[in-house]
Amino acid sequence: MHVLFKGTVTDVPGFKAAGIASGVKSNGGRDLALIYSEVPAVAAATFTQNSFRAAPVELSYEHLQESAIAQAVVINSGNANACTGEQGYQDAVAMCSAVGEALSIDPKTVLVASTGVIGVPLEMEKINQGIEEVAKALSKEGGQDATNAIRTTDTFDKNLSVNIEIGGANVTIGGMAKGSGMIHPNMATMIGVLTTNANIDAALLQQLFSESVEASYNMVSVDGDTSTNDTAMILANGLAQHTQITDPNSEGYRKLKEAVTFVNTRLAQMIARDGEGATKLIEATVTSAHSRDEAREVAKSVITSSLVKTAIFGEDGNWGRIICAIGNSGAQYTPNKVTVSMSGGDERVRLIENGAGIEDPDGRLGLLLKEDKIIIEIDLAAGEEEATAWGCDLSYDYIKINADYRT
Amino acid sequence: MHVLFKGTVTDVPGFKAAGIASGVKSNGGRDLALIYSEVPAVAAATFTQNSFRAAPVELSYEHLQESAIAQAVVINSGNANACTGEQGYQDAVAMCSAVGEALSIDPKTVLVASTGVIGVPLEMEKINQGIEEVAKALSKEGGQDATNAIRTTDTFDKNLSVNIEIGGANVTIGGMAKGSGMIHPNMATMIGVLTTNANIDAALLQQLFSESVEASYNMVSVDGDTSTNDTAMILANGLAQHTQITDPNSEGYRKLKEAVTFVNTRLAQMIARDGEGATKLIEATVTSAHSRDEAREVAKSVITSSLVKTAIFGEDGNWGRIICAIGNSGAQYTPNKVTVSMSGGDERVRLIENGAGIEDPDGRLGLLLKEDKIIIEIDLAAGEEEATAWGCDLSYDYIKINADYRT
Repeated sequence: MHVLFKGTVTDVPGFKAAGIASGVKSNGGRDLALIYSEVPAVAAATFTQNSFRAAPVELSYEHLQESAIAQAVVINSGNANACTGEQGYQDAVAMCSAVGEALSIDPKTVLVASTGVIGVPLEMEKINQGIEEVAKALSKEGGQDATNAIRTTDTFDKNLSVNIEIGGANVTIGGMAKGSGMIHPNMATMIGVLTTNANIDAALLQQLFSESVEASYNMVSVDGDTSTNDTAMILANGLAQHTQITDPNSEGYRKLKEAVTFVNTRLAQMIARDGEGATKLIEATVTSAHSRDEAREVAKSVITSSLVKTAIFGEDGNWGRIICAIGNSGAQYTPNKVTVSMSGGDERVRLIENGAGIEDPDGRLGLLLKEDKIIIEIDLAAGEEEATAWGCDLSYDYIKINADYRT
Repeated sequence: MHVLFKGTVTDVPGFKAAGIASGVKSNGGRDLALIYSEVPAVAAATFTQNSFRAAPVELSYEHLQESAIAQAVVINSGNANACTGEQGYQDAVAMCSAVGEALSIDPKTVLVASTGVIGVPLEMEKINQGIEEVAKALSKEGGQDATNAIRTTDTFDKNLSVNIEIGGANVTIGGMAKGSGMIHPNMATMIGVLTTNANIDAALLQQLFSESVEASYNMVSVDGDTSTNDTAMILANGLAQHTQITDPNSEGYRKLKEAVTFVNTRLAQMIARDGEGATKLIEATVTSAHSRDEAREVAKSVITSSLVKTAIFGEDGNWGRIICAIGNSGAQYTPNKVTVSMSGGDERVRLIENGAGIEDPDGRLGLLLKEDKIIIEIDLAAGEEEATAWGCDLSYDYIKINADYRT
């Protein structure tokens, strides 16, 4: 697998994109992204589990239920079009119609996502004019602008692309995402869009993508909250022209899934690292769990614990808080068999062995905690399953961003 | 019901208590509490659900399993005797033995709780000497010192007592608690001890107390974490000499449960208000839920949401975050039927009606948010059940206390 860390969704043959400023963001920043496939693509998506689902989530879900074919994705930032009632739904429909008209494609093959303020109607005049403009701006070089246009409080662009070989053909997967930040006056959203020229059956693409999201975006948490607008999508336009992937046990499926999961995981890690006020990325890996679900629960319990997060912000290897977070997960294990280690940079220190704390006479723990990526490894000694989750520390700036954002 | 807000566990006839400094706390503060009933009492307790249970939790559980009779409770602060292996268990046994010897009672009628540092062995010389001393100090006026001796990062003493009448007899219930704070270098604990002279069957007392804890301590969260040492207990010595309560449908049971729940709830609210760095108490009341469990989940989801907590710290009535927390609870309801109001002081503002936000043109929301107790009322319009949870805001000082506590 060849990785382009600055790669974008337009590295994939057949895809164009653009990102422009429609005027919805009052600071004049880019706030409207369009991604377009020159040929209809099979599409798959996963949406927020929050029971308040924003209008664009409802509509994209409906479009994919009707047919798993999409040719464009339109995303606006600055306004989430959530809790906006029937008007919000009509506005989402209007966005797809405007894209359909501008690109001469069926509006039902347009997917839509929004991120930003909740409860405020979209300024449809600006959006409609913006869609005309962004459709004209589509280009093979537009991937970076599209990534930039979906940012809210994100402090850096999140995208990459990878190349793999399937059945002798060169297959590219490009991805872009934005993180879970807060913007005035409400929550923003996790949005991820992947493009590929792989040739795959639609149902298999959904299966592959859902499994991949489970192990990537769904294992990231900045503050434990899920927004009304979370959306991850993939479009596969088939232009690589290898034999279509129709078997989940085939090598092509395995390779594509590995590459898609790599892209999703890297994007997920960028989201965690860019959590509001975050100074460190925290990775929790759980091994020897009784079940996969329990491995996931333990890993997530550790990276969402406010006590663990503040300790790591304070560069303190407080193993008592890790023990506590493990104990709160509900997983089955024997406490006095648990082993926990912590790593940062080249240092790795055993914190807990057989459920009891270990001295750190050399102060190596203090050293490794100065690194900006901290890995916590937990061996539950209870089975064969494993999982990894990503989060970030909890800092003064998290409070500042989320409490004082109006001032 | 007559309430004494400065009341203590020794307001109850037949109970003595004391709190002294054993030297475990390096600052010389009180760190050892003893509560004693002149006659054997029936006892009930609930313990942490964390699967790492500290040695004193294990031992107190065993003592109550063997016989629901207790005559003394010993509690030390400064060291949680958690993750201390077999030695920790033996130390807990030794504490009960020392109390038994000092008071000439069966050590198995002694309950024990600890709070403080995790993973460090107890200094048993200091503890043993302290137990001799605290037993000598027992008095009818010792309730306040006992409360004081179980504090860790608590900023105020938490106790009260109430008087009720059962079957013509004057029944008193006294309670003391400490909150969930952090101390160097690990987590502290929620501990609550109630005393009463009510005369009740042991199994019924456990039922009454468990139900009461569900609606009080179990509905409080400062940061979502449960410690290894959380313990709530009640001793009922029967000295009020009314006819024994043996029927859960009797008036005596109902009255006692109401009074015990009042005491537990007030203590729980004090714990929430004294959450680390807290500037405001948050109360979330959910009505018209499909089930009691769902009502509880929604209320807890709201008071544990970092986004809601930081918004309230910032005195911002961000209803989008409340919507989001409700949506994350997993409860069944129709989003566009939900109603949410917020109150503080004498002001009450409707934030959401039928799932959509409401304008606040007069800025009343900003005014009510200046109060130090904020009530969030959520009507799910999905059934008949209700629940209330208590939490606190999330402030800069929470981060300071939990990240920088070593410096």
